[in-house]
Amino acid sequence: MNSTSDRPKSISAYGPARSTILDQPLSSAELRLMHRYWEASLYMSAGMIYLRDNPLLREPLKPEHIKRRLLGHWGSDPGMSLIYIHLNRLIKKYDLDAIFLAGPGHGAPALISNAYLEGGYSEIYSDIEESAEGLGRLFKQFSFPGGIGSHCTPETPGSIHEGGELGYSISHAYGAAFDNPELIVTVMVGDGEAETGPLATAWHSNKFLNPVRDGAVLPVLHLNGYKIANPTILARIPHDEIEHLFRGYGYEPYFVEGSDPETMHQAVAATLEHCVQVIRHIQNEARSAAPEKVTRPRWPMVVLRSPKGWTGPKEVDGHKVEGFWRAHQVPLAEVHEKPEHLAQLEAWLRSYKPEELFDKEGRLDSELRALPPGGTRRMSLNPHTNGGLLRKSLRIPDFRNYAVKVERPGTISAGPTEILGQFLRDIARDNVHNFRVFSPDENASNRLTAIYEATKKVWMGEYFPEDADGTEITPDGRVMEMLSEHTLEGWLEGYLLTGRHGFFSTYEAFVHVIDSMFNQHAKWLEKSRELAWRADVSSLNLLITSTVWRQDHNGFTHQDPGFLDVVANKSPEVTRIYLPPDANCLLSVADHCLRSHDYVNVIVSDKQPHLCYLDMESAVRHCTKGAGIWQWASSDQDSEPDLVMAGCGDVATMEALAATEILRQHFPDLKVRFVNVVDLFRLLPDTEHPHGFSDPDFDALFTTDRPVIFNFHAYPWLIHRLTYRRTNHHNIHVRGYKEKGNINTPMELAIQNQVDRFSLAMDAIDRVPSLKLRGAHTRDTLKNEQLECRRYAYAEGIDAPDIVNWKWSI
Amino acid sequence: MNSTSDRPKSISAYGPARSTILDQPLSSAELRLMHRYWEASLYMSAGMIYLRDNPLLREPLKPEHIKRRLLGHWGSDPGMSLIYIHLNRLIKKYDLDAIFLAGPGHGAPALISNAYLEGGYSEIYSDIEESAEGLGRLFKQFSFPGGIGSHCTPETPGSIHEGGELGYSISHAYGAAFDNPELIVTVMVGDGEAETGPLATAWHSNKFLNPVRDGAVLPVLHLNGYKIANPTILARIPHDEIEHLFRGYGYEPYFVEGSDPETMHQAVAATLEHCVQVIRHIQNEARSAAPEKVTRPRWPMVVLRSPKGWTGPKEVDGHKVEGFWRAHQVPLAEVHEKPEHLAQLEAWLRSYKPEELFDKEGRLDSELRALPPGGTRRMSLNPHTNGGLLRKSLRIPDFRNYAVKVERPGTISAGPTEILGQFLRDIARDNVHNFRVFSPDENASNRLTAIYEATKKVWMGEYFPEDADGTEITPDGRVMEMLSEHTLEGWLEGYLLTGRHGFFSTYEAFVHVIDSMFNQHAKWLEKSRELAWRADVSSLNLLITSTVWRQDHNGFTHQDPGFLDVVANKSPEVTRIYLPPDANCLLSVADHCLRSHDYVNVIVSDKQPHLCYLDMESAVRHCTKGAGIWQWASSDQDSEPDLVMAGCGDVATMEALAATEILRQHFPDLKVRFVNVVDLFRLLPDTEHPHGFSDPDFDALFTTDRPVIFNFHAYPWLIHRLTYRRTNHHNIHVRGYKEKGNINTPMELAIQNQVDRFSLAMDAIDRVPSLKLRGAHTRDTLKNEQLECRRYAYAEGIDAPDIVNWKWSI
Repeated sequence: MNSTSDRPKSISAYGPARSTILDQPLSSAELRLMHRYWEASLYMSAGMIYLRDNPLLREPLKPEHIKRRLLGHWGSDPGMSLIYIHLNRLIKKYDLDAIFLAGPGHGAPALISNAYLEGGYSEIYSDIEESAEGLGRLFKQFSFPGGIGSHCTPETPGSIHEGGELGYSISHAYGAAFDNPELIVTVMVGDGEAETGPLATAWHSNKFLNPVRDGAVLPVLHLNGYKIANPTILARIPHDEIEHLFRGYGYEPYFVEGSDPETMHQAVAATLEHCVQVIRHIQNEARSAAPEKVTRPRWPMVVLRSPKGWTGPKEVDGHKVEGFWRAHQVPLAEVHEKPEHLAQLEAWLRSYKPEELFDKEGRLDSELRALPPGGTRRMSLNPHTNGGLLRKSLRIPDFRNYAVKVERPGTISAGPTEILGQFLRDIARDNVHNFRVFSPDENASNRLTAIYEATKKVWMGEYFPEDADGTEITPDGRVMEMLSEHTLEGWLEGYLLTGRHGFFSTYEAFVHVIDSMFNQHAKWLEKSRELAWRADVSSLNLLITSTVWRQDHNGFTHQDPGFLDVVANKSPEVTRIYLPPDANCLLSVADHCLRSHDYVNVIVSDKQPHLCYLDMESAVRHCTKGAGIWQWASSDQDSEPDLVMAGCGDVATMEALAATEILRQHFPDLKVRFVNVVDLFRLLPDTEHPHGFSDPDFDALFTTDRPVIFNFHAYPWLIHRLTYRRTNHHNIHVRGYKEKGNINTPMELAIQNQVDRFSLAMDAIDRVPSLKLRGAHTRDTLKNEQLECRRYAYAEGIDAPDIVNWKWSI
Repeated sequence: MNSTSDRPKSISAYGPARSTILDQPLSSAELRLMHRYWEASLYMSAGMIYLRDNPLLREPLKPEHIKRRLLGHWGSDPGMSLIYIHLNRLIKKYDLDAIFLAGPGHGAPALISNAYLEGGYSEIYSDIEESAEGLGRLFKQFSFPGGIGSHCTPETPGSIHEGGELGYSISHAYGAAFDNPELIVTVMVGDGEAETGPLATAWHSNKFLNPVRDGAVLPVLHLNGYKIANPTILARIPHDEIEHLFRGYGYEPYFVEGSDPETMHQAVAATLEHCVQVIRHIQNEARSAAPEKVTRPRWPMVVLRSPKGWTGPKEVDGHKVEGFWRAHQVPLAEVHEKPEHLAQLEAWLRSYKPEELFDKEGRLDSELRALPPGGTRRMSLNPHTNGGLLRKSLRIPDFRNYAVKVERPGTISAGPTEILGQFLRDIARDNVHNFRVFSPDENASNRLTAIYEATKKVWMGEYFPEDADGTEITPDGRVMEMLSEHTLEGWLEGYLLTGRHGFFSTYEAFVHVIDSMFNQHAKWLEKSRELAWRADVSSLNLLITSTVWRQDHNGFTHQDPGFLDVVANKSPEVTRIYLPPDANCLLSVADHCLRSHDYVNVIVSDKQPHLCYLDMESAVRHCTKGAGIWQWASSDQDSEPDLVMAGCGDVATMEALAATEILRQHFPDLKVRFVNVVDLFRLLPDTEHPHGFSDPDFDALFTTDRPVIFNFHAYPWLIHRLTYRRTNHHNIHVRGYKEKGNINTPMELAIQNQVDRFSLAMDAIDRVPSLKLRGAHTRDTLKNEQLECRRYAYAEGIDAPDIVNWKWSI
């Protein structure tokens, strides 16, 4: 590399490779073979985009061989395939356990072609055999109705990263590397993707990777130069800024830049080999050092500047294509309309000499077949990319051991997350290689601190003397905390998809930061379920805490229970939502979730102390049913109730109980049935969700004609969306958060949103026909008591003791 | 600065300031005054957290003077206030037009205290006068029920950035600076916030800021050292990595590190002054250069390393507090329980000598009152922070000029966004200083390219010769494209909150990336509306395009219309959702949105060509009504319909029309009423949303008892959530996206989700009593036609011509 202060140039001005490492490790025979192998993958990549027939061009190319609709992205495939193929060489040479993540969007042809060339694709999909017919079917099915996508979807062998939405390749890669000491995860990062926020901060993941017990991540930033229609930022800043940036992120960047294949093969071969050696050296040093000497190494990374759409058409209709944004998608788009495009396409495809790449049966030439590794060393068949194969069940202690002793319902308090923390602590203790806990700087705030008795937070940054006093960090900790929900979610997904287990806790309002990541992961799971060859992975367990009803002091920005609405839009096959009302129910739910697989489990539970209602066995029974009548809080024994009072969520349930008590005091003869809902999807019909109640079961709880007051944790309309088909729906009156809040006390916030005991009791008076007249006076009394609460809150800044200390006393 | 390769040390080991700039610009008198002024703000910051009475400590401190609940965050206030006060000096010295954004969460005391000290607070809030009583009220109301929050909420004078959710300070700052050539936006970035993805990529905003016509952003990265319970990454990497990182981001970092106030005052004064001079120099150079010579400068930024909770208690109960994570929130938390804490608190508060800071009326000492700038140079009253004051209405050409000529409904096609692009082009042309268009690399993909005829994309990166061929970039462009929805949304919010106008277009599935930013902005608007002194700002206009129904080829990851569910959870006061069915309706809606203020307007419109149904005047009438009967598509004239067929969304409407046609062909006597909904919130009751229909108006469209088939663009249950209270709700049968998709053709995707014409016609047969028997044969026919469509799609990879070319032909 001559100068480090160069301003970037058009890639065509680079020519022969310039690189940090100047070795030339390939013999000319090796180089020729690898180049041909690369050309085979490039031919296939282009073939997938264009060909529905004549896959080996054994006839002259005619319009009827071309797909009617041309889809797929050519631009990033050549660079990505080049890295893949050179990794193959090193896997064989060093017997590496390696996987490959493709960050750039729509980059599937690079992976699919390589999976096919190494035989992995045909082993998984028997109809895509290694023959001209198989190749033809592969080409045709690509980005074709009923076929496979142009992203690295779950259907792609060797993929754990789809890249449909950009930004998560690096965090997925680190997630895969944690606790896999022998694994090398190479991750291509597109320079478009690199502009996203989640990607930009994920580079800092190196502060959380311990070379002793974790594997290595080798990022390859692909300065492909262009996005859909724009240059990329990182391809248009001076060389020294790129170098500074990655040194600043803590990496040692190695550059490979150029457009001449021959010299680029040598440069890539040399650079990747050097990086593997550096990785091995770092690991050997760290693993032979005393534990207290382990520090954060400067891990290598590669910056690859190569032409977008490399080896494709240089110009089309007088416009530059190779090395320009026009190569992003389909370089020759009008092959059906313009004969000269068809001719240019044929010339392009034939430039790879398919007749020399594939033998007469259509199998890859035997000389080339010898190049890739075999068995599960093939990146397309590496079991880490089908993590369910490697997944071991968690060792889970009996959650009943952590139970709160509840002798009478609603009379003692416990912090649900504090109790859960003890359970998680022992799970962490008993599963030291395949379980991690994730939170954005909030495990302590969320009161899960008991975990630190088993393992602390991993930290590979610098240490200060005062850290001994409660910072709870250590290089070999297994609790993951960084102030980036994106990075945490990405790590967790990568960790789960490679066969491990995890638990994520986060503030309710800010889980919306990862709405889109949740969507994408749910979609991944949904598609994976349809593939018999993909083994089940552990569920993604998400504890939503610091919930809206206890964010009265943090104000309006911290009040948003709407993540449940996002979750409810995704497939019922993969989504579960639980709102345990107390600590014992939380234990039961958490145990269930930690044993499950292929779901996203969302658990909503506040971190403050809350009343306990159910002893452990009752909690288990209740959570298993998912929703049920609490007889001890009901007064409708042996008869139809006048009113159903329902609670879903901890605070919502407490206020509904307190309202029941008020009603009982004022109207002793009123028959109230108290229902609690833990498993939210019980409310859906059984035709809509596997957890849904049948209509008779639903009616058995909520009746077919009695007024129902449903006090809900989140936005009230979600309950209507779930229950609109039920017989008694028109009688269901839902209270929940309706976007009212500022700086309040808990009770004042509840009152503003009418989920408080007084509002609910008044609702009952308004809705139970027999109370309408005789309840008028009580209604006034309640109104006044409510007002008194507000006055107290405004004067004292806290809720009155009788509110704070309320217990169930009937 | 001695060495740049230092490993970071505990802040207490720094002592006297170390800084890049070594000048000592303050006289000792100035230094003394500024230090006292700083102490006044620190006294106030602590007072806000603790005191409900005895605000000037004129009596010995007693428990009854202390708030019962201690809330607020002390940790980041001292460093933030220090920067604020030193900016005051420079504002006066150089007559700067400057504003201040507080990135760290809960940092409001620093801003509120300074707003009060410079008189701005009392000018806005007359009850918080400059007196002991006013001060007492200010202290009490802070983080107190019915009072103000601990973030820089809309109630905070001088704030356009709340910081309730972390990550957006830098993008907000750049948004404020665009097109404000004289403005300097200082933005404090917390080192916690700096770990978030959105913040990490927003540093690259400097590639989009043109020194000729934009103002300057001066970021101050505050290495405060700790988050809630963890060290921060950037405070725990070696000095050279920090320096590399910010050089890599393209900045010139200036360091100020230390804990000794006297030398820190000099260092901060010198550094900020140097930065202001550099900024002025950059701007002068650029503004006197030839336009083609303008390149991206290396803007200055400051790295401030100071102790968390600086000047507060050094130790509490034997634990380190100042300079440690324990100073994050309330340093002395048990003042009610422990007399020694109360004594320590009193000593801490008295260490600032309040009796010397405030005179006997409780006003700031007269010597100190002379320090801050006056009038609107005060950062608390700078009109840019109350942007509505500066907002000028857009000059908007008559949107009718862009109308598609529609002679017969549903017979010609036009690309709605292509037409919209022409309208936006002319708005851009006529509003060159206060209107920008934003998109994540997608304006071209979203077919808004006509805009480039008026203005191109701004690009301050390097240029290559080939850029002339269609890259559409220039340093003075005003279209904003970066592959980060977060950064774009942040820029746009900053731009709007400082009184300008904008338009954001993005892919439907990936708008979820900014769910949480939308939530926070909606909350900001909601609270701002309650404040008479905050002038209205322009609405945030969000075009959601590349919609689910035309993402058949991009596959499952690109199919998610759920953003509307997120929007519908926010306050009806600030949310609007429009689904114009064709190009003319889109024009009408866009015109309306661009003229509105204080809303988030969400417009859903696909980018592909779609049938046009309404001529311009009909479109205006229809969009004004928000929903209405299309008589030309209806056959229920002068009578009650047998069926209401409704469409909402472009593709949904087309399929519903095609279904109507099918029904008409098969059952000529069937009375079908066709309803189209543009303004989604019309469906809500008028008691729930200002746009809601009254029940009679709703019933007039949807009847009280006829079957309704409602074909919806997004997830179907959203319609149930909006209409569950309507009389005829149990007859409303909704079709929409139900998370079924892969690689499909448009029709195949529609069929999978049953929003296609055949499914809808079959739904009608199933639901209209008179068709149940006589329709059985037709139903079979339709089922076969549907199957034929799928067969064609699977064979040819495209939809059959009669599907693609379908027109309304009745």
